Amino acid sequence: MAAAPVWSVDPRTGKQREQVAVEATAQEVDAVVRAAHAARGALADRRLRAAFLRTAAARLDEAGKRLVEAADAETALGTPRLTGELARTCYQLRAFADIVDEGAFLDVVIDHPDDTATPPVPDLRRHKVPLGVVAVYSASNFPFAFSVPGGDTASALAAGCPVVVKAHPDHPALSEQVAGVLRAAAVEHGIPVGVLGLVHGFDAGVELIRHPRIAAAGFTGSVRGGRALFDAAAAREVPIPFHGELGSLNPVLVTEAAAVERGEAIGAGLAGSMTLGTGQFCVKPGLVLVPAGAAGDALVKSLADAVGGTGPGVLLDHRMRDNFVAGAAERARLPEVDAPVAPGADGEHTVSAGFLTVPAGRLVRGGEHDLLLEECFGPVTVIARYRDDTEAGAVLARLPGNLTATVHLSAEEAAGRGRGAQLLAELTPLAGRVLVNGWPTGVAVAPAQHHGGPYPATTSTSTSVGGTAVERWLRPVVYQQTPEALLPPELRDDNPLDLPRRFNGRLEPGSKQ
Amino acid sequence: MAAAPVWSVDPRTGKQREQVAVEATAQEVDAVVRAAHAARGALADRRLRAAFLRTAAARLDEAGKRLVEAADAETALGTPRLTGELARTCYQLRAFADIVDEGAFLDVVIDHPDDTATPPVPDLRRHKVPLGVVAVYSASNFPFAFSVPGGDTASALAAGCPVVVKAHPDHPALSEQVAGVLRAAAVEHGIPVGVLGLVHGFDAGVELIRHPRIAAAGFTGSVRGGRALFDAAAAREVPIPFHGELGSLNPVLVTEAAAVERGEAIGAGLAGSMTLGTGQFCVKPGLVLVPAGAAGDALVKSLADAVGGTGPGVLLDHRMRDNFVAGAAERARLPEVDAPVAPGADGEHTVSAGFLTVPAGRLVRGGEHDLLLEECFGPVTVIARYRDDTEAGAVLARLPGNLTATVHLSAEEAAGRGRGAQLLAELTPLAGRVLVNGWPTGVAVAPAQHHGGPYPATTSTSTSVGGTAVERWLRPVVYQQTPEALLPPELRDDNPLDLPRRFNGRLEPGSKQ
Repeated sequence: MAAAPVWSVDPRTGKQREQVAVEATAQEVDAVVRAAHAARGALADRRLRAAFLRTAAARLDEAGKRLVEAADAETALGTPRLTGELARTCYQLRAFADIVDEGAFLDVVIDHPDDTATPPVPDLRRHKVPLGVVAVYSASNFPFAFSVPGGDTASALAAGCPVVVKAHPDHPALSEQVAGVLRAAAVEHGIPVGVLGLVHGFDAGVELIRHPRIAAAGFTGSVRGGRALFDAAAAREVPIPFHGELGSLNPVLVTEAAAVERGEAIGAGLAGSMTLGTGQFCVKPGLVLVPAGAAGDALVKSLADAVGGTGPGVLLDHRMRDNFVAGAAERARLPEVDAPVAPGADGEHTVSAGFLTVPAGRLVRGGEHDLLLEECFGPVTVIARYRDDTEAGAVLARLPGNLTATVHLSAEEAAGRGRGAQLLAELTPLAGRVLVNGWPTGVAVAPAQHHGGPYPATTSTSTSVGGTAVERWLRPVVYQQTPEALLPPELRDDNPLDLPRRFNGRLEPGSKQ
Repeated sequence: MAAAPVWSVDPRTGKQREQVAVEATAQEVDAVVRAAHAARGALADRRLRAAFLRTAAARLDEAGKRLVEAADAETALGTPRLTGELARTCYQLRAFADIVDEGAFLDVVIDHPDDTATPPVPDLRRHKVPLGVVAVYSASNFPFAFSVPGGDTASALAAGCPVVVKAHPDHPALSEQVAGVLRAAAVEHGIPVGVLGLVHGFDAGVELIRHPRIAAAGFTGSVRGGRALFDAAAAREVPIPFHGELGSLNPVLVTEAAAVERGEAIGAGLAGSMTLGTGQFCVKPGLVLVPAGAAGDALVKSLADAVGGTGPGVLLDHRMRDNFVAGAAERARLPEVDAPVAPGADGEHTVSAGFLTVPAGRLVRGGEHDLLLEECFGPVTVIARYRDDTEAGAVLARLPGNLTATVHLSAEEAAGRGRGAQLLAELTPLAGRVLVNGWPTGVAVAPAQHHGGPYPATTSTSTSVGGTAVERWLRPVVYQQTPEALLPPELRDDNPLDLPRRFNGRLEPGSKQ
């Protein structure tokens, strides 16, 4: 059987640009994974891998113009957005280098012997070690930040794990270019190029998750694809952690008082957030609870004005475009659903943004309107008009897990007078990030960030953005009664590496900060 | 259909003692889970739940004599061991109360806005919240420490999660008594009794893992049972974390120099560890690599003397007894396997401890001898005699994941002269706890403890013993741009609860320690 070709496609025309590669066979996947496994030892030195991450960032920066052009040709996301995304990606690589240097993620805990405990405690010294080779499944919608050089890769390398990336078919040429840059950065530090493997093809992705030398996986994509890989990871003879980000509706609740106070501004803000990147963000607000009545009407009118003024956009590929057009139409056909600005097909290759409205009561009892509680990828959102707080709460109670949940409050409510705190408590079970008076699009890279949430938002309780993302690729090991001469330096009493740690119960922050 | 009776059985005679309960129907499981779910709010106050854990420990202590008698009648583990186990269990409940008070497990991270970041960082404040109702599957072999009041229950309650325990059929009467004590302790603090549910029956256990209101599970038991529940947890519409401890061989490597230096002492120590609790510890050393030649011979002779002098023992139930007798016989029949002290049936209800020897070369290439690399529950271990370091390493390389791995070194090797550090590095990938010159039986309750390891030792990277066990039942939530007036006190700048945290990048240990 001839190897299947992998084409780079221009989403602005639907035309093939060039053949980039061929899909990897099972044997090829095996070779790539083995090469990554063989590169493990080279990442053991933390100082070296921090330097590697910084060099990777520098080389990506240097190649920026070329990479952004390559990304735009395959994704149509535009130069400004892609330039910003690459800057974010480099910032993230450097942030993980700092995390490696600090070493708090090693979770060092040292307990001296204690004969007064029940039972007595022997000398115990714990830290975390890398899991092994990590499989990373790239996203379509962030060709840098959630793809070859993105958060999964950066955090896995920071943890000391080699990576094999399954390229997304929407940007195979860029994936090859970026992998080349990362490999060249590895070579600068004497790290084998195998530390960053790249494979193309659906079947290769399935082979990858089943490979015995793959120790964990990160994924960003659809519920269907992610769940299939999650199931395969769980069905292995030796199951492995699968950290998948699958789908999210990102509900927004606007209180009556907030709508009265600044309904027009909220409508305009919502238009900006839901159309950002042509609605192709995982954190796009997909369901907005707006009060019935005049204040809510003003919000909806402002939204309609702003969305109606949005020009046509190109989606990442034509399959997505077809799904968007069909999904929007199917939703718009439901009883009592209106489309003040109709989302759907525009030209042959473009789509236009829009939104739907529905009485919130239609979302409370199940049935065909439950389709409106499923994510529709692209520039569309659903405005559910609620009659009272009870009805709004009943809709929230029916939602699956989300990456984000947002509430818009009036100034009085935000100041603690009113239901603000209670609404925050109601939104917390729904999501991993809860916002007040903001929009969920835009995921900052910061120590406190959490980009994850109850299933199907993610398949685990961890995050793919922010400092704690590194925790996914580690496991603890404790050494018992181990002579000082044999201990890794991380676990010695005199703390030669100046690591933050818990020492005989006390937290010691270290002096590196 | 009549409800299936649940009997308490005396393992010393195999006779039914009393009917304790009936197996829970699906409807009954549902009611128990709903009651637990309804009790969530009562655990939200951390000070209250710390007090509850301490009261639970106090009431278990007070009921100690009665509970130990009940446990001994169903498990035959003996009063001294059970008294110690109960003391450990109470110590553990109090240790988790201290952990709740300290609050480090909340992982508070606060980032003020930073416009210099790429992209800019808004105000972000993260902590961890309880997952929901936790299902706990009790172990046969630790009727206190890994059952109703054990580490899973204590850590879940510490995290703020109500618990539903699936009782182990080897000690149903004790399970009811202990649950009663814990519920009475809850009532003392105004916490609904539903906070600690208890169900009996195999089918009830399956219902439990599938129940939509169950948010996570902890399990200690066999590979077969644990894997079936792991698979069910992963196959749910909404998959949940399943923290199972399934099985472990707990390999031990004795270097030539160590055997020369103190072979007899090692043989005697091994005899004590492998027969402790009639060999029914998860961390029993099940495979010991001993050098061929005179020094190793002396070790084996010492082991034979000590094991041969061990009296007959009662296993936890007759099914285990049958499995042990059959498993030991099947292993002893393999080519080149000898039984210097034959393990197997003794009287009608008892077994005798023993051990097998095999040339290590038989364990290198697969085939029928791989049976020796599987855990055999009960008082038996396998001594593999190796010719050189390469052969010993080849056996280690074939082992599945373990809770523990142990090396016995000479004084010179322990002092860092020789292969000590290299052997430690070879053992680390095999297990979650690595010991030098000790025995794995006995798992201290301490902040640094890690009781877990690569699959099948555990199904996750976390631990069921030690302070970090609480992490299993939490998920992070970050609040973005949330006004101070609406923030939970844990996330306020002025830190009114004096929590350890990361504040604008800096670790602040707090002043409570």
